[in-house]
Parts: sequence; C-alpha cells; structure tokens
Amino acid sequence: MKTSSESDALRALYQSWTDRMTANSALTIADLRSLFDEWHQPTREPEGVTYKSETLAGVDGIWALPLGADTSKVVLYTDGGGFAVGSASSHRKLAGHLAKHLGVTAFVIDYRRAPEHPFPAQIEDATAVYRQLLARGFKAQDITTSGDSAGGNLAISTVLQLHAQGVALPGAVIAFSPWLDMEHVGATLASNDASDALVKKPVLEAMSGMFLGEKGSRTDPLANPLKADFKGFPRLYVTAGSAETLLDNATDLARIAKAAGVDVMLSVVDGMQHVYPLLAGRSQRPTTKCAALRSGSSVSDPCRIRSKGHPRAHDRLR
Amino acid sequence: MKTSSESDALRALYQSWTDRMTANSALTIADLRSLFDEWHQPTREPEGVTYKSETLAGVDGIWALPLGADTSKVVLYTDGGGFAVGSASSHRKLAGHLAKHLGVTAFVIDYRRAPEHPFPAQIEDATAVYRQLLARGFKAQDITTSGDSAGGNLAISTVLQLHAQGVALPGAVIAFSPWLDMEHVGATLASNDASDALVKKPVLEAMSGMFLGEKGSRTDPLANPLKADFKGFPRLYVTAGSAETLLDNATDLARIAKAAGVDVMLSVVDGMQHVYPLLAGRSQRPTTKCAALRSGSSVSDPCRIRSKGHPRAHDRLR
Repeated sequence: MKTSSESDALRALYQSWTDRMTANSALTIADLRSLFDEWHQPTREPEGVTYKSETLAGVDGIWALPLGADTSKVVLYTDGGGFAVGSASSHRKLAGHLAKHLGVTAFVIDYRRAPEHPFPAQIEDATAVYRQLLARGFKAQDITTSGDSAGGNLAISTVLQLHAQGVALPGAVIAFSPWLDMEHVGATLASNDASDALVKKPVLEAMSGMFLGEKGSRTDPLANPLKADFKGFPRLYVTAGSAETLLDNATDLARIAKAAGVDVMLSVVDGMQHVYPLLAGRSQRPTTKCAALRSGSSVSDPCRIRSKGHPRAHDRLR
Repeated sequence: MKTSSESDALRALYQSWTDRMTANSALTIADLRSLFDEWHQPTREPEGVTYKSETLAGVDGIWALPLGADTSKVVLYTDGGGFAVGSASSHRKLAGHLAKHLGVTAFVIDYRRAPEHPFPAQIEDATAVYRQLLARGFKAQDITTSGDSAGGNLAISTVLQLHAQGVALPGAVIAFSPWLDMEHVGATLASNDASDALVKKPVLEAMSGMFLGEKGSRTDPLANPLKADFKGFPRLYVTAGSAETLLDNATDLARIAKAAGVDVMLSVVDGMQHVYPLLAGRSQRPTTKCAALRSGSSVSDPCRIRSKGHPRAHDRLR
C-alpha cells in the first residue's frame, strides 16, 4: 500500500480517535461530537476566503465566500460524521477550498443530527435549504450539492428527494468518500478493515442504527442510494481513497449511476484514507492528472483541491 | 444579577462542559482539548475576514486578515484554556472580530500546551513569534499582544519577558478575562463561585498544577503577573464579566498597573461570564458606551466587538 506524509497525517488522526473511543466506552454523544470536530485539523485555512454565519430555512450554516468568486453559483455542502457527529465548522475549511477551486460560493449547513433527529430529518433540512437557495434567485443548474461520508450520501439523497418532488435539480453533485451502504455488505468493509484507521463495521452499525432509528429502512433509496434509480440524475463526481472500507460505496455508486446514463467521473486515490480531501492545503503541488468534470463546465475537477497523492484511476465512466 | 440572552448562551455552554466533566471523570487531556475546542461555538463568523495558516518561529498559527485592514499592524493573539486546552482554531473567529474592529491583522498562535510543555514554554513561544514579527518588519508599537484567560496572562507575561530581555515593547496590550492569580487567593473565586458556570477553584488548581509543573512558582511574576512590576508597561485594556470567579484578577491587574503609571482602561460588564467577547457577532447592536482605548490611537476600544451587554464600569484609571 502506497502512503504519503499527507495520508499519514489523516491516518494518525483517525487512529487517535479509534484509540480514544476504544479506551473510554463512557464517551457520550456530546463527547463524540467534540472528538469528531477535530476533523478540521488536517485542513489548512484556504487563503482569500471570507465567511458568514447565516440561518437559511431554519438551518444554521456558514457561507464560504472566496474573493472574486461567482456569487451566482453555490455549493450546498453537507459534512460527514455518520449523520450524528461532524459539523459545518469541522468542514468549513474544506468547503472553502472546494468553493475557491471552483470559483463559486459554498454554504455548509448544520443539518439536524441523529439520534435526536433520525432519518429523514437530514434530507428535510437539506432540501429546505436548497429550496431557499432557489427562492433567493440561484438557478438550479448553478447549484452543486456536495458532501463527504454521510454528507456525501445527503448530497445524493437530497437530489433523489428533489427529483421525487418535481423540483429542478442541481447542475452537479460532488461526493467525497460517500457512505451509502446501510446494509454493511460492501466487500471492502472486510478487505480494507486493516488499512482504514477509522471506519470499522461496528462504528458504521452504531451510526446507521442512530440514523435509521426504529422506522427507517436499510434499503430505502433515500437512506441507501445504492438502491436508488439514477435516471435523470445530474452529472456526478465521486472520489475515495483506496485504503477505505467504504471504497466500494464509491465504485458501486459510479457503476450504478453510469448504468442509468449519468455523466460520472470516478477518482480513486491510492493509499488514501476516508475523506482525504480534508488534507486540502497541505501541499502546494498542483495535481495535474485530474481532468475537468465536464469540459467547459463551471464546475471543474474538485479532486485538484486535494494535496498531493497518487492518482490511480480517473475513469470517465461512459 | 443581570442577564441577557447572549450571556445565557455562554453560560449554557460552560454549564454543559461542567456537567460533562463531572459526569465522566475518565476524560483524558485529549478529550478535554476536544471539549474546550467547542469554545468557538458562541462566536459567529466575522464577515469580510480571510485567513491563512502559517508557522512562525516554529509555532503554528492562523492569520486573520480583514479586508482593508492595515497590514502593517498586527495583534499577536494567545487563546485561553488554562495553558493546557484551547487552540488557535477555537479563537480564530474572536481574533477575526478583534482584528476587524481595530482595522489591523491578527496572528493567533498554537503555543505549546501544558502538561506536556509546562511553564515557561508558552512564553518562549509567544516571545519567539513576537521577535519574528519584528524581524518581518513590524514595528514594535504597531504590535498589540492580546489574549483571554490564560492567554490574557500570556499577553501580559510575554511583554514582561520582552521588557526583561530589553526588546522593544508592543504598543498596547488587550486582556479579556485574564487568569493571573496562580495562588487562587482572589476574593471573587469564592464570591462568584455560584454565578460562574465554568471556572471553579478545582479546575484552576488542576490547570495551575499542569502549567507550573514541578519547577514553576505560583509567585513568579512571569507566571503570576499580579506579582510583577508594571513600570514602563504599554497601555493596557482589561475587561471581564461581573459573574466571573476571575473578576478580581482583572480589577487587581488594573489597579496594580495604574499604580505603576500605566495607561489602563478597565471594563467590567454586568452578568457576563468568563471571556464574554467570545459572543462576538451575536448582536448587531453597537455598544456606544465604550470609549477609545486612547484617543487618536489606532487601537480603539476592543469592547465594542462584543455583543450587547450592560456596561457597568468603564473606568479610565488615572
């Protein structure tokens, strides 16, 4: 397995969390939320980005406003953390890097968390914010939904829900290491168990239990988009690290969406951990192997915001 | 005791920390660092401020760069947290508000923490960064040291150390709720025990123990500036909340510095908790009762960055 100093930094953080959770079984959900908010640590401040706290449709969030950005375009960003932990604050810098790279704005939302608020509260919040963005005058095609891990799931399930509701869909979807498989049946869950320093099956089982509660189904397409019909879905960029247990969530998603006729770009980066774009800003070396998501698109390849890595596959699935 | 919705928000956060620390005695220093990093939560994003991660003199930090700020002036900011917890990240937004209000830049540093690095590691880091700022071309009078709680101590002790070393001193010092009394003998430690939701004597004793280690003295003027000679000290702004156990650290500091001939402004705000400026941005209502730190100075009154409150005393001690 290839490694780099950057992936090592993320692996070390994840291993420290795993060690702490193992050592103290009395950690409460509040303690775990504090712990996972350390997720911001690997990400350096993106330069030239201002921020604004705002509540839209009753949902608190943070605008990332890169200097010179096209303010008519926005990334609606949902952070990872198993639908239970993580926050807009833990992913503010990542959203800032993404927005800056794309030359647009971003709005990172503090959607309601499980277990206090189980499925589908998260999708309700994200769709409410999306509708509010439309009401503010953003055109649907100028909105991109994006997120990582559970937030990558939301970036997709929000669009599936909007589609079901007959709302105009966003122009693109960007998913970093999406967690989609609520049945915990993916092959890499076992095969990458040793290389993934954080995302183990017991962690996922605990989080899916909180997320789905007593009423949610592990095969509901809005909870588990691997069960969804992707016909008519916007163009989709998906990336994951090869060391992840959730790797085949990304590859399966790309395959399923491609089969449904979606314009998909998949990027798997060798040796990288879960949500490796959180390493953004740690290297000045540009990555030149990532092509544009769509030639001439305003949404260029978000994988360029990551630090140096070892691109293995940038398959344009056709 | 007067209250406000803003002070209630900070009190609720502090009470939640106290409850969590009481409920789980197995919390490690790593857990406590995660917990205290929630300190950023009451502070809204200051608008129009960009950031930059940088390492100066071996010390990691975050630049807060308000649009249009005078980049020849800088606030060297040290966060609170008993010298053991807290971080540049937890106080980034506060430093951004402060810098924006003053029309200057700020550099918030992740100085080394106790207990791994006891006194005087923190002062060594702060003075090293100060010297590096001078080496970069900042004029001493254009530098302000500032901090809160233990970081307020550092904002002062750093200047005392620079004075002892014969280095040109900063133009001003700004201390929010400084923690100075390493002997734990202040009268408000007992009289405000019920109203302060976080800073109780056992917490302070644990933190001073980690900070001073085996070699440090509770009466060393560099650890306990209430024992210091303030002759020749820069002009000084000090603020605290009336509900704080550390209230008389602020009032004693003001008295001692005034007696030594220092230009001091003291502000005590009714009903407010420890480091109430962390509420910055939660109210749009400007506070007009705070006068300038020094008429015509580039460093105007930082208490205006706080949200609405109930100014009780803005005594210009002469």
